[in-house]
Amino acid sequence: MEKISGTAGQVIRCKAAVAWEAGKPLVIEEVEVAPPEAMEVRVKILYTSLCHSDVYFWEAKDQLPIFPRIFGHEAGGIVESVGKGVTDLAPGDLVLPIFTGECGECPDCKSEESNLCSLLRVNPNREVMISDGKSRFSINGKTIFHFLGSTFSQYTVVPSGCVAKVNPLAPLDKVFILGCGISTGLGAALNVAKPFKGSTVAIFGLGTIGLAAAEGARMAGASRIIGIDLISKKFDLAKKFGVNEFINPKDYDKPVHEVLIEMTDGGVDRSIECTGNVDAMASAFECVRSGWGVAVLVGLPPKNAELKVNPAHFMMNSKALKGTTFGNYKPRSDIPILVQKYMNKELELEKFITHDVQFSEINKAFEYMHQGESLRCIIRMDD
Amino acid sequence: MEKISGTAGQVIRCKAAVAWEAGKPLVIEEVEVAPPEAMEVRVKILYTSLCHSDVYFWEAKDQLPIFPRIFGHEAGGIVESVGKGVTDLAPGDLVLPIFTGECGECPDCKSEESNLCSLLRVNPNREVMISDGKSRFSINGKTIFHFLGSTFSQYTVVPSGCVAKVNPLAPLDKVFILGCGISTGLGAALNVAKPFKGSTVAIFGLGTIGLAAAEGARMAGASRIIGIDLISKKFDLAKKFGVNEFINPKDYDKPVHEVLIEMTDGGVDRSIECTGNVDAMASAFECVRSGWGVAVLVGLPPKNAELKVNPAHFMMNSKALKGTTFGNYKPRSDIPILVQKYMNKELELEKFITHDVQFSEINKAFEYMHQGESLRCIIRMDD
Repeated sequence: MEKISGTAGQVIRCKAAVAWEAGKPLVIEEVEVAPPEAMEVRVKILYTSLCHSDVYFWEAKDQLPIFPRIFGHEAGGIVESVGKGVTDLAPGDLVLPIFTGECGECPDCKSEESNLCSLLRVNPNREVMISDGKSRFSINGKTIFHFLGSTFSQYTVVPSGCVAKVNPLAPLDKVFILGCGISTGLGAALNVAKPFKGSTVAIFGLGTIGLAAAEGARMAGASRIIGIDLISKKFDLAKKFGVNEFINPKDYDKPVHEVLIEMTDGGVDRSIECTGNVDAMASAFECVRSGWGVAVLVGLPPKNAELKVNPAHFMMNSKALKGTTFGNYKPRSDIPILVQKYMNKELELEKFITHDVQFSEINKAFEYMHQGESLRCIIRMDD
Repeated sequence: MEKISGTAGQVIRCKAAVAWEAGKPLVIEEVEVAPPEAMEVRVKILYTSLCHSDVYFWEAKDQLPIFPRIFGHEAGGIVESVGKGVTDLAPGDLVLPIFTGECGECPDCKSEESNLCSLLRVNPNREVMISDGKSRFSINGKTIFHFLGSTFSQYTVVPSGCVAKVNPLAPLDKVFILGCGISTGLGAALNVAKPFKGSTVAIFGLGTIGLAAAEGARMAGASRIIGIDLISKKFDLAKKFGVNEFINPKDYDKPVHEVLIEMTDGGVDRSIECTGNVDAMASAFECVRSGWGVAVLVGLPPKNAELKVNPAHFMMNSKALKGTTFGNYKPRSDIPILVQKYMNKELELEKFITHDVQFSEINKAFEYMHQGESLRCIIRMDD
């Protein structure tokens, strides 16, 4: 285990990748990281990766521009110190900061049906800590804002409710990728769509979330897993994740749901929409079979999007439309269980890791994603 | 038990209420009812009642005008004779003809998730028997068309898969009302919305289906049951069915979902929409709480209706939108169980029966419904 030095209670100076402006390359800067306040922890980040939502809020095309800001939220690290009142985490614990939290006390945390903690649920527009409305990051006194876990920093401060403690023997450079998209996709299949054995599942969008959803469908025993993507070459990689049929909507002159309904003689049993495109959502709902079809929406739609559906599909055809944040996993309770599944070899993670860069080259991860060829790129936080 | 005379295999002449034209009062006529063909049964109807869907297709404003036709589908009777191949029903059996069927052999019947039999699922536009494309009703050689069970006739012929055999000791003049709307509402709550103990449920529309949904929510242990209707006086009757709060949207100058969200400090746990109005459907979805809210659509929308929803409610708020036909009950398997629940006093039915007429006065049932003051009106098939 990494040695934790006597930095508790002090400001730590370390490297962070700062986004000074929307859409401009990140700049590695030396930042000051204040100690954790009550119910917060400071975490030394060892590995992080880039997720689409980092890019979405960094581009800020459709969002509030909040800059300068430290992005990053899928990561693994070690607790450096804990604030007052934190009793269930201690320096040295192996942890995954999670973008959404679990306070354990609110009605949502106490319900088996919800993972949307009333206090700590994901809020990408929150740029400061909840406790005091301040940021823990600064450069020579100038405030640098938070974004979720702000894991593009060698040290970060997060609410203790947003930290999942995992098996100390877990290989952190693999399991840290359970912190966002992969769990989201897996859970969308296993916890929400719940395909039955032998069922047919359509996956819209073969990025990381879609492939994780396919993997979940495969684990649940689905026998036909049909991938839908506008880039045909993605099918090759997707085969590793259980996708065994492929449709590129560009190859047809009719809507993709009609293609799916014909291919399956009436519709798929489940669909999982991972693109956020409203037309794809409508197709994902249309393509499910009457009687028991369930469509699960995972992809984030554009602001003010409107989804139009034929309501007769609900009462006449008994179809259902669901959605999920983080695959319905409760971050602190359930992520350690997924980590254990990886360690028990019930879950493969290596195949999601396609690239590997040092922290100083973090902008390369953006390029890989932009080129559409990467799933997860490990960013190693140089010492 | 009623004595069954030796009419098997012969044409029966009896009284039926015939709709000669859309929206015109029914006329009691003497009709000929042909014997059942293979996999059909002929049933002597003892009690029937009027349901909104009879009126909807009789008015034929938005539907194919199929006339002359015999309406009616919620009824109780006795099997008079069975066609070739029918082994599980026999003359003398106490039965409820059901508007949707259960063949027992198709993928839907074999699935626990569906009650939409591939062969016999409800089809209000089917005007003849599936087996030979012919009607079993005629008047002096002129064809009179079927509508679902066509129970506004002293004898009718239906597929054996559309007949639920019930406990021979059941009081048929009570349990026959389980044949449509009441089971639909009960099942929408108990099988689809599934409110948890202590939960809050909003019911849109306090007609028979809405009140049955309220009764189901009460049986499931919901503690706040909020009725929404444009007619305030319905609240008095609704109290008998567990409705303990009431909103008339006309009393507010903001959308009803906003009223509900304020009343419940964030939204109701479940909503059940029983009006078929698209704005009410949108409100039913808006008003459910994030984290675990489920809206269930039961009311039949107008043809070509379009429901517009904010897709972020699915993936950001984990809300779900579902629908159901006949409350997800499988007609032959599950209705006998509901009948038994009535006999065990776990279910009250009497309070749904507000009126009582002889067959010769059947048009009064239409008036009662039109006046908005009746729930179920027993129509007694005079001998």
